[in-house]
Amino acid sequence: VPELPDLSDLHQGCRFIELPVRGDERGSLIPIEEGSGAPFDIRRVYLVLGTTEGTARGFHAHHRLWQLAIPVAGACTMVLDNGALRRKVRIAEPHRGLLIPPMLWHEMEDFTPDCVLMVLADGPYDEADYIRDYGRYRQLVGGVAEVGE
Amino acid sequence: VPELPDLSDLHQGCRFIELPVRGDERGSLIPIEEGSGAPFDIRRVYLVLGTTEGTARGFHAHHRLWQLAIPVAGACTMVLDNGALRRKVRIAEPHRGLLIPPMLWHEMEDFTPDCVLMVLADGPYDEADYIRDYGRYRQLVGGVAEVGE
Repeated sequence: VPELPDLSDLHQGCRFIELPVRGDERGSLIPIEEGSGAPFDIRRVYLVLGTTEGTARGFHAHHRLWQLAIPVAGACTMVLDNGALRRKVRIAEPHRGLLIPPMLWHEMEDFTPDCVLMVLADGPYDEADYIRDYGRYRQLVGGVAEVGE
Repeated sequence: VPELPDLSDLHQGCRFIELPVRGDERGSLIPIEEGSGAPFDIRRVYLVLGTTEGTARGFHAHHRLWQLAIPVAGACTMVLDNGALRRKVRIAEPHRGLLIPPMLWHEMEDFTPDCVLMVLADGPYDEADYIRDYGRYRQLVGGVAEVGE
């Protein structure tokens, strides 16, 4: 079992969450609810699947939304960027969720063809909560703005 | 696209729910929230995965819980039984959820090795909400009790 990387240098709210696995001779069951796996009330779930080869997606941060990303099948790489530090983590185990706090830029890449990424979120979809411009994101987090921003 | 079977003969709350798919050149994204896919507030999510060959599971009904079962990878067969009528439906598409209302007996079988079944529920885990004895279930729904019940 590989050790989980410490991600607190990126953001104090960013971390892996070890989900409980109830396993027996039938197989596995992973329950996720407030207080058991998810550190928030689940208001929305979305699935990213059928991602085409070479595709990267994400490229945003949220003002307020918390998300828990769980690779329920296959694997992908999460690129996390706080405006000053950029790290890549491979997520590949359905019992290890990655908690993505607000105000952390994230991208996803290197999806396996079978990857199904399940994301739990603590709020409904709200386009106004997205920061889609990296230069603006850096300004907001206090980094140096891109030339031309 | 195969037509979705009508399941209202089993229970008026039992039906397939067509989930919205946002697809583009990157792949697909399926959002699920109250009012868009889920007919209830999501309070719990659980994953059934790594099911061993030949395993059947479930074998219960709930007093009050509503659930939406979504095969996010692979496929399985849901056996639905209202105490008088028993039907099997194959669930195999991540954009088609099966709504399982309270007081409907259900079993799952014939899992593909890659099957990941995601189930959304409208309440936390509560053992008191389970009816695990089929004879007792039939009594509760007004069917004829098994001999010896």
